[in-house]
Amino acid sequence: MVLKKINDPSDLKNLNITELQTLADEMRTHMLTVLSEHPGHFAPNFGTVELAIAVHTVFDTPRDKVIWDIGHQAYPHKLLTGRLDAFETIRQTDGISGFLSREESKYDVFGGGHSSTSISAALGIATARDVNNDDFKVLAIIGDGGLTGGIALEGLNAAGDFKKDMLVILNDNQMSISPTIGAISKHFHKLISSRGYNRLRSGAKELVNFISSDAKALAQKIEASLKPGTLFEEFGFRYFGPLDGNDLETLIPVLTGIRELSGPILVHVVTKKGLGYKPAEEDPVGFYSVSGQFDLKTGKSLRPSSAIPKYTDVFSRTLIEEAKQDSRIIGVTAAMPGGTGLDKFADVFPDRCFDVGLAEQCAVTFAAGLATEGLKPVVAIYSTFLQRGYDQILHDVCIQNLPVIFALDRAGLVGADGPTHHGVFDIAFLRSIPNIVSMAPKDENELQRMLKTALNHDDGPIALRYPRGIGIGVKLDAEPKALPIGKAKICREGDDLLILAIGNRVHPALEAAKTLSETGIESTVVNTRFIKPLDAELILDLAKQIGKVITVEDGVLMGGFGSAVLETLADAGIMDVRVTTLGVTDRFVEHGDVTTLYDRYGYDTQAIIRTGITLAVGS
Amino acid sequence: MVLKKINDPSDLKNLNITELQTLADEMRTHMLTVLSEHPGHFAPNFGTVELAIAVHTVFDTPRDKVIWDIGHQAYPHKLLTGRLDAFETIRQTDGISGFLSREESKYDVFGGGHSSTSISAALGIATARDVNNDDFKVLAIIGDGGLTGGIALEGLNAAGDFKKDMLVILNDNQMSISPTIGAISKHFHKLISSRGYNRLRSGAKELVNFISSDAKALAQKIEASLKPGTLFEEFGFRYFGPLDGNDLETLIPVLTGIRELSGPILVHVVTKKGLGYKPAEEDPVGFYSVSGQFDLKTGKSLRPSSAIPKYTDVFSRTLIEEAKQDSRIIGVTAAMPGGTGLDKFADVFPDRCFDVGLAEQCAVTFAAGLATEGLKPVVAIYSTFLQRGYDQILHDVCIQNLPVIFALDRAGLVGADGPTHHGVFDIAFLRSIPNIVSMAPKDENELQRMLKTALNHDDGPIALRYPRGIGIGVKLDAEPKALPIGKAKICREGDDLLILAIGNRVHPALEAAKTLSETGIESTVVNTRFIKPLDAELILDLAKQIGKVITVEDGVLMGGFGSAVLETLADAGIMDVRVTTLGVTDRFVEHGDVTTLYDRYGYDTQAIIRTGITLAVGS
Repeated sequence: MVLKKINDPSDLKNLNITELQTLADEMRTHMLTVLSEHPGHFAPNFGTVELAIAVHTVFDTPRDKVIWDIGHQAYPHKLLTGRLDAFETIRQTDGISGFLSREESKYDVFGGGHSSTSISAALGIATARDVNNDDFKVLAIIGDGGLTGGIALEGLNAAGDFKKDMLVILNDNQMSISPTIGAISKHFHKLISSRGYNRLRSGAKELVNFISSDAKALAQKIEASLKPGTLFEEFGFRYFGPLDGNDLETLIPVLTGIRELSGPILVHVVTKKGLGYKPAEEDPVGFYSVSGQFDLKTGKSLRPSSAIPKYTDVFSRTLIEEAKQDSRIIGVTAAMPGGTGLDKFADVFPDRCFDVGLAEQCAVTFAAGLATEGLKPVVAIYSTFLQRGYDQILHDVCIQNLPVIFALDRAGLVGADGPTHHGVFDIAFLRSIPNIVSMAPKDENELQRMLKTALNHDDGPIALRYPRGIGIGVKLDAEPKALPIGKAKICREGDDLLILAIGNRVHPALEAAKTLSETGIESTVVNTRFIKPLDAELILDLAKQIGKVITVEDGVLMGGFGSAVLETLADAGIMDVRVTTLGVTDRFVEHGDVTTLYDRYGYDTQAIIRTGITLAVGS
Repeated sequence: MVLKKINDPSDLKNLNITELQTLADEMRTHMLTVLSEHPGHFAPNFGTVELAIAVHTVFDTPRDKVIWDIGHQAYPHKLLTGRLDAFETIRQTDGISGFLSREESKYDVFGGGHSSTSISAALGIATARDVNNDDFKVLAIIGDGGLTGGIALEGLNAAGDFKKDMLVILNDNQMSISPTIGAISKHFHKLISSRGYNRLRSGAKELVNFISSDAKALAQKIEASLKPGTLFEEFGFRYFGPLDGNDLETLIPVLTGIRELSGPILVHVVTKKGLGYKPAEEDPVGFYSVSGQFDLKTGKSLRPSSAIPKYTDVFSRTLIEEAKQDSRIIGVTAAMPGGTGLDKFADVFPDRCFDVGLAEQCAVTFAAGLATEGLKPVVAIYSTFLQRGYDQILHDVCIQNLPVIFALDRAGLVGADGPTHHGVFDIAFLRSIPNIVSMAPKDENELQRMLKTALNHDDGPIALRYPRGIGIGVKLDAEPKALPIGKAKICREGDDLLILAIGNRVHPALEAAKTLSETGIESTVVNTRFIKPLDAELILDLAKQIGKVITVEDGVLMGGFGSAVLETLADAGIMDVRVTTLGVTDRFVEHGDVTTLYDRYGYDTQAIIRTGITLAVGS
């Protein structure tokens, strides 16, 4: 087995092309075996096998710096850089990361779970190299979806200006997660269909043979023969391609040639997502990631599907129902129609759903524009990705107090995706912005009610955050009713302890209260519902009466929900109340199983019980 | 006087070209008169006079929607839309805004003080129009600098894909504030120099005369005659231009023709910043904005220059001195070299200062890349604009714990620029992110020391925030010493009251303490220095001893510095301490004189005195 012999990329240098092709096959088989048992990103990694082999064969890594945009296309890179044995632990608690990590490997030059950062990072590294009078190569590998993100385009613009020696490989699979949106992507399609890609695909090998004695000349020949007056040339890059990115016999000589060229260079390679595994080739969207345990032959999941719906599905269904009644409702997504459930909305209302591409900033300001004309835009973005739209939420939506609805999916800990993806900052970053209402449902039925509440709220912006994954299995109201803005709800009464819970922490709080009751400690549990405006009246009354308070939230404590409770008490001049806040302490949370992480960071049912006893006994 | 007769844009429709040209002259004279007395943005508005006249003449505003990117180029628009009389109050307390404001006028379709938003907003409005089966025109006017911002490029990409009928006017003055950076801008230059702009400039009038009977045909002729295979066509836009944007005889017929075309269209006009006022034409950077009262003949300021240096200047000088000792120090700016003082740094270290364009996201991630190679990047960005880099700070810098230094100029209230520019959110949004140290100096000497502290800090990211304008006149250490991270300093001792102040609020706190002492209330005043890590030990000791605490900060209270103090007390389980937090309550702050605003929002010296008395007497 060739793969077993690759301890680090230097072991690639002695392999001939046939051995490298065998290696590619072995890597696919290995990824297939592991990923059919363990969840992970799938199709992107089956497209980048040859790219990873070629890059590590041609370049002198880690001296040469290779920056993969979003680590989830970099499993083949991991297999080649000393992580073959650890690969089975990928994305699992205390296992290796599903993304790149500077802490994990010296080959992981720059980490990232949010797309489009690689060009700016590579430009920084290339600039540093020149300042330091060093002489390594710098290479960013970015998908066609990632290239629609604003920071990628900013990076191209600056790189074209700085004229540093650096290489960008555009890994064009015509899919980001869903098919790529935007004019740039159409531009690639045009290039591929019209500019001799097919000719190159068939003719490349002959070309390589013809002038394999001089790889640099080959590269220049390819440039000259196609001469596309592309977007990238307008940005100041020399453009090469399109090339077959799954063909080592093309990639290796061309990259060898291009390696020696100077200035900003873009190589456009076309790869096939899921390549080598038929079910994934045929359904790359479905196989974007897999949740483990599927039938190798059919590709069908072996995991029993849950009878309990996902929050995303409940959101999607409710939105569709509401939109049937209200023609002003519009869906807005930033390249995540499937993940957010807007794909189903778009099936029903194709003219009322808009995907702006991997471009959260544009999505938010686009929605602000829609709102100025009396529409009701619902911007559905994962909590972590909405960080990209922070300024637009503040500057375009909230200052102008426009009625835009933000649906934050994947809020709180997300598990296996880790620190770049946990949606734990939104409570804090939204709370400090004036005018926006912020809420979190305790379960999937309350999600329905909160969406209804948001759609009824014409006075300004409003956000609802809900977790990844399935709900808790409560009955869903057929006709959900809106909630009164800013009103909390008492779920259980008791005189010894006040537990103020928000969102998915309400249920653990109720569980904890039950156990505490068995030890003789009676708790009042409040489903706070609204982070902002907080139900100050209820909270102050109860806090004064009970005197001992636990707040619990699935988010960071610094500036979070608990902090809002403390501010409310201080504003009212209330003393003599002891408050303990539970949530994410001041650190980034690693990847892992969420149950383990809730335990580790001390805000699950057990932690509430422990804290409750300490508070009650400590009186 | 023609100008006096323009009550709204409909009054333009009956004027002939000569009268419109007279109007342009009168508008320039009027702006010059007002701005030579009152501070305001200058050069950008002298370039857009004809554009504003032409747009309001050709289009049917406010039915047709005109979105100006960043309002500070829109003074001529204000003069034509009912705000001639109010113009003298521009940017003053309770006067009209220096930017656009939906609250101020129905002609201000979409406000904004941060650049590059107009295309996304216009796309939203055009999309809403089609959803609503309405039929007005939508027009975004954006500068060449603004077009280098990520959200502008995201907007172009989505607009090229959606194929909505909309018009983008690229107002190309080859300057954003400073000369525009980036490959895109060079692309414009190439277009202008090579593609018959000069020919058009001289020939446009003949062309107009020749086929003035059919404006649409004229527009198409211009398109056909130039046929530039530009960037914009790659983005899916039809491109027209470049045109002389200061020539009404070109603009009006061409816009009239283009108005009737469908799909996404970009018109590239070239204007001259400062046009009509020689000193501003010759120094558009110096005349980007004026601070009032200058000599009309020479353009020289009549305001006596202060002997006290600006914070920006102290930052710049200190950075230069430190960089002489440490070759790893690199300056990074996002199109604001002058405003941040990095222009002077670049004069001394031209190879160690980088301007990435109006692209805060790129600036932050570029700096992260620099830091991975052992350099010490200092990212100097106004507090309000750093909001654009929020995700990059969190995701690229802080998760990877890279030693990037953030210098946040214009932190706190900025005065005349108003709600889009007040730097009041950074304390809150940085505080909730792990790994980053955050500090604020009490005066310009402490700014020196904090910059030194930041440059010595190799363990991770660190931010310092300092105000707009001049310091308070303290002596500057010749060799500033670093501060111990996370240590506060007691400035005054007293047993009745504890005032925890941060940054520019330390001095008002000391003033207040002096007055309070005269009434018999003795205060301990702490210069807290570090928002994060907070000096918990000192704060807890003092709070327990004194029992009555005021926190005061130049930022939002929700999630801010005061909130951090409350969290610290709660974490330590301390009760019986009364805390009152002073700062910006939960609303956006209007423009106006900062002294007035500090008073209005209750966190100046007087407010501290009032609060101190209430707290002390209320015991």
